[in-house]
Amino acid sequence: MTLILALDFGGTKLAAAIVNVGSREWLRYERRLSPAKADASTDLEIMRSLIYSLLQGTKPAAIGVSFGGPVDASTGTVRLSHHVAGWENIPLKHLLEDEFGVPVGVDNDANVAALGEHRFGAGQGYDSLFYITVSTGVGGGWILNGKPWRGAGGMAGEIGHIVVDPAGPVCLCGKRGCVERLASGPYMAQNAREILENVPPKRQGGEILRGLVGDDLKLLTGQLVSEAAAAGDDLAKEVLHKAAWALGVGIGNVANLMNPQRFVLGGGVTKAGEDFWQVLQRVARETALPEVDFEIVPVVLGDDAPLWGAVALTSI
Amino acid sequence: MTLILALDFGGTKLAAAIVNVGSREWLRYERRLSPAKADASTDLEIMRSLIYSLLQGTKPAAIGVSFGGPVDASTGTVRLSHHVAGWENIPLKHLLEDEFGVPVGVDNDANVAALGEHRFGAGQGYDSLFYITVSTGVGGGWILNGKPWRGAGGMAGEIGHIVVDPAGPVCLCGKRGCVERLASGPYMAQNAREILENVPPKRQGGEILRGLVGDDLKLLTGQLVSEAAAAGDDLAKEVLHKAAWALGVGIGNVANLMNPQRFVLGGGVTKAGEDFWQVLQRVARETALPEVDFEIVPVVLGDDAPLWGAVALTSI
Repeated sequence: MTLILALDFGGTKLAAAIVNVGSREWLRYERRLSPAKADASTDLEIMRSLIYSLLQGTKPAAIGVSFGGPVDASTGTVRLSHHVAGWENIPLKHLLEDEFGVPVGVDNDANVAALGEHRFGAGQGYDSLFYITVSTGVGGGWILNGKPWRGAGGMAGEIGHIVVDPAGPVCLCGKRGCVERLASGPYMAQNAREILENVPPKRQGGEILRGLVGDDLKLLTGQLVSEAAAAGDDLAKEVLHKAAWALGVGIGNVANLMNPQRFVLGGGVTKAGEDFWQVLQRVARETALPEVDFEIVPVVLGDDAPLWGAVALTSI
Repeated sequence: MTLILALDFGGTKLAAAIVNVGSREWLRYERRLSPAKADASTDLEIMRSLIYSLLQGTKPAAIGVSFGGPVDASTGTVRLSHHVAGWENIPLKHLLEDEFGVPVGVDNDANVAALGEHRFGAGQGYDSLFYITVSTGVGGGWILNGKPWRGAGGMAGEIGHIVVDPAGPVCLCGKRGCVERLASGPYMAQNAREILENVPPKRQGGEILRGLVGDDLKLLTGQLVSEAAAAGDDLAKEVLHKAAWALGVGIGNVANLMNPQRFVLGGGVTKAGEDFWQVLQRVARETALPEVDFEIVPVVLGDDAPLWGAVALTSI
């Protein structure tokens, strides 16, 4: 019995699972939320306890790791986490190899999830694909010629920060109209809040959205915007359609530039419903040249994509 | 003595050259303009005469071909030419292999020029680069992991048709604010013409540009816009800066998405001078994330990039 151990340092949650080589079902699976004041040490400590609980005295043949932040995949060193303090330049691969004495592969979550979908999910049989996650942030990972393409400095895939509307609102990165600024969950909530705070009295829409948060606009989330849109709220629809438009322009531009076979989309925002997908598909098709073929499909592995990708990472 | 024959079907001109394997200087070189009413047959006839004049009874070991239009590189079939009639589905590789009895490689000019710069020019030693030509159109070619990346359907590289300003003017492709719509030579000329035709009497600028065409605005070209800008014409500068801005946003977006080491820029518009390059470099740097490193450099091979790329194509 050859075991693979897969780890997912997700920023707000930690997950670990083991699987027999060749199997498509987890043998055992553990998951914890990061504590409120997590740092790299507490994350590592919790993960260690998950691992020992999973292994039950057995030894894996290899360990694959998905990390939610920039990673130097060639050395397996975490550069930093945007969510958890203390992760600057942590040699995660070496730490784990020292402790468990087996080969370890580490890469960032978008690259790993792309690999997971390629090997086990919506990208099976597709040699070129771009995986996009639309959640708290918007990121992506490439598979080209059947292998991850990470870029010269490991920074490829940042579709969240390509500009689609230079006259749009200012993003955290300092530019205007990035895909992430229009399509991420928190920014969708912010966009809805700003309209609601300044809405003229006679304007229609927003009532359902207001109702969902009992008029406390601080409680708005991207998911609530999606729910209100699904329930027919015009203002929520406007915000959601703008997000789908931004993603559609981004995807159409990427299709023209790289011509991959498939786009595989995951993350909370992509669960917003049929309406969101229709706008997205239409705008992407309009943005791409007529000769450029592609498909846009949802993820198959869902939240487990990074863990399955971590499994795939051990056999590259 | 092993000879390589390189051919360039350029749309408005035809060029052919032969070189000894390993040499970096053409042994012989021939070039002709396409006749005004060229079609595929006349282009092929002229190219044939160039070839026999070059070969002087010798036989090349292989033939590489750059074609100015979409090509199925796997079969060496030309799909069409946007400039010359009759090129629909012409099996150029097979025609040449039948006639000359040696291996032939065919690819489109942007991919071939990218390969030429990679092997012999500004891309030597760089495993990942994006070549961009800014001329009558705006196109590009990829080198990733040291090899051409053509896309799943051979359509990769179309930076000319990524949208950088959704509120911008309408492009021939039907979309608004494509890079090509703002940065190609003919569109720069059109943009200048439209401003001059509607310029309010008191507005400054445009005098030098008008002078260059003796007030006949139909004679405006992208090159004249560049010349007037270099001579200090404010209106021409505005048009040229908008072109540089569009290219800069495009390049910054591509850097975020693919993270190549280098961008190599050629074509007439990129000879517009220091001012153009400064705007381009600044906007690209501002558009890319701070962690994404890249360089933007001019081509080294100039108009010969497709021919040198055709040589490289024979040894892939």
